[in-house]
Amino acid sequence: MSENNFIEITSLSNDTVKDVVKLQQKKYRKESGLIFLEGEKSICEAILNDIKLKSIFFTKDLSKFHNLKGVIYYKVSEKVMEKISTTKSATNIAAVAYAPNYNLDEILNKNKIVLLDNIKDAGNLGTIIRSACAFKVDAILLFGGCVDEFSSKVIRSSAGNIFKIPIIHLGEDISVMQKLKKTHKIISTVAPFGEFAKKAQDCRIIDYPKKYILALGSEAHGLCKEILKLSDLFVTLKTENNVESLNLAVFAGIIFYIINSKK
Amino acid sequence: MSENNFIEITSLSNDTVKDVVKLQQKKYRKESGLIFLEGEKSICEAILNDIKLKSIFFTKDLSKFHNLKGVIYYKVSEKVMEKISTTKSATNIAAVAYAPNYNLDEILNKNKIVLLDNIKDAGNLGTIIRSACAFKVDAILLFGGCVDEFSSKVIRSSAGNIFKIPIIHLGEDISVMQKLKKTHKIISTVAPFGEFAKKAQDCRIIDYPKKYILALGSEAHGLCKEILKLSDLFVTLKTENNVESLNLAVFAGIIFYIINSKK
Repeated sequence: MSENNFIEITSLSNDTVKDVVKLQQKKYRKESGLIFLEGEKSICEAILNDIKLKSIFFTKDLSKFHNLKGVIYYKVSEKVMEKISTTKSATNIAAVAYAPNYNLDEILNKNKIVLLDNIKDAGNLGTIIRSACAFKVDAILLFGGCVDEFSSKVIRSSAGNIFKIPIIHLGEDISVMQKLKKTHKIISTVAPFGEFAKKAQDCRIIDYPKKYILALGSEAHGLCKEILKLSDLFVTLKTENNVESLNLAVFAGIIFYIINSKK
Repeated sequence: MSENNFIEITSLSNDTVKDVVKLQQKKYRKESGLIFLEGEKSICEAILNDIKLKSIFFTKDLSKFHNLKGVIYYKVSEKVMEKISTTKSATNIAAVAYAPNYNLDEILNKNKIVLLDNIKDAGNLGTIIRSACAFKVDAILLFGGCVDEFSSKVIRSSAGNIFKIPIIHLGEDISVMQKLKKTHKIISTVAPFGEFAKKAQDCRIIDYPKKYILALGSEAHGLCKEILKLSDLFVTLKTENNVESLNLAVFAGIIFYIINSKK
């Protein structure tokens, strides 16, 4: 560790500490363009995927993160680490990084795109991102009031895989989807017992087109009308024992798996 | 509602209220043989699956739960409902029910059994139970220090499906598994990049025997040595993009789906 210069922080009211804590709020992440990473795994994946770090906070040692160019190192007390941590049992290494900035035009050229509509649960979103990476989805679009993809819980639930896939928030703007409909088939997933089940095909038997948007809605509300209206195809996954629906992240994982194993 | 007699409770220190709150603790559930159900969906599924209710608590109306034989009805204030509720936004109907009591011998005769080893996360356990029902698993064994299956979060995460499948806690007792090995193949699931990956087969290409135990361990620690030692077969699911592993509930859902679609 001797080769690294570091600044020592033990005060909970230190300005740098205050700035890091602010990053727990979406507002400050957007304003600053910064995100907060906890634990070796997330930091490792960020570096491997060319995410630029601004600073590293450690309590004991730097593990594998010595001598990163342009990174400011802070050796902090355990109390400080607890303060900046978003989990019950704090990690011993954390970092502030520059949020990746994806270009919408670049995403529009991808083949296999997943759209998530109004996903409020951070754990679900992170888990879906992890599965999307595992089964080669090319990009993710977030529609409506989705949770921020750079909240600590999303990053954690993605097990650091969030940096492997471009993700763009569309907000309520349906015009991007209208544009995409010219080049991509829009495939809406619906519950096996829901109102759209009758016109839905079994997701296992479909020939997926080369370019598509696979749309998934929340468990509580399904897909919104705007997306359903634009759909070229409805798909569902049959369950047995009168199970009305699967957990959304499980459903997403199975359908990503099915599509990926068809190729 | 006029046809139902009910007792009115508005005091937070009422003894019945105190007894219901105690059911949030595993210790009291075990002692009393009672469990606590929140929301219409869970109560409905309990009744449909012959779970006997002891009492119903409602704030406004009884919904579809009129005139159930032997059930004591309590009309409670919203404050009382908040007190007994385990969620942030309290439901308007809840119930106390007698926990189902499954017979180990009966379970040993089942064909498709899932063993879960040391699953600490209630959300994960409930989600796995839900998927197990959806893809026709016959029974679930809980091994090691698993979370109690009748905690409110497990019941909620199972979306009420917990009453459709027999579940037995084995604790640390490996003798049941030794007995089961005589009649069932023991199939251990392992991570695609873990130490057992080399001897594992792709879960998609295996001919599953008629009688088997499919064993799943926790994300953090995998399966324990005792179970791995007893295994007849190791299976894994390949992921891409260097995703080290999937979320446990997603992995379980995909493998249940794969096995069920082979029949």
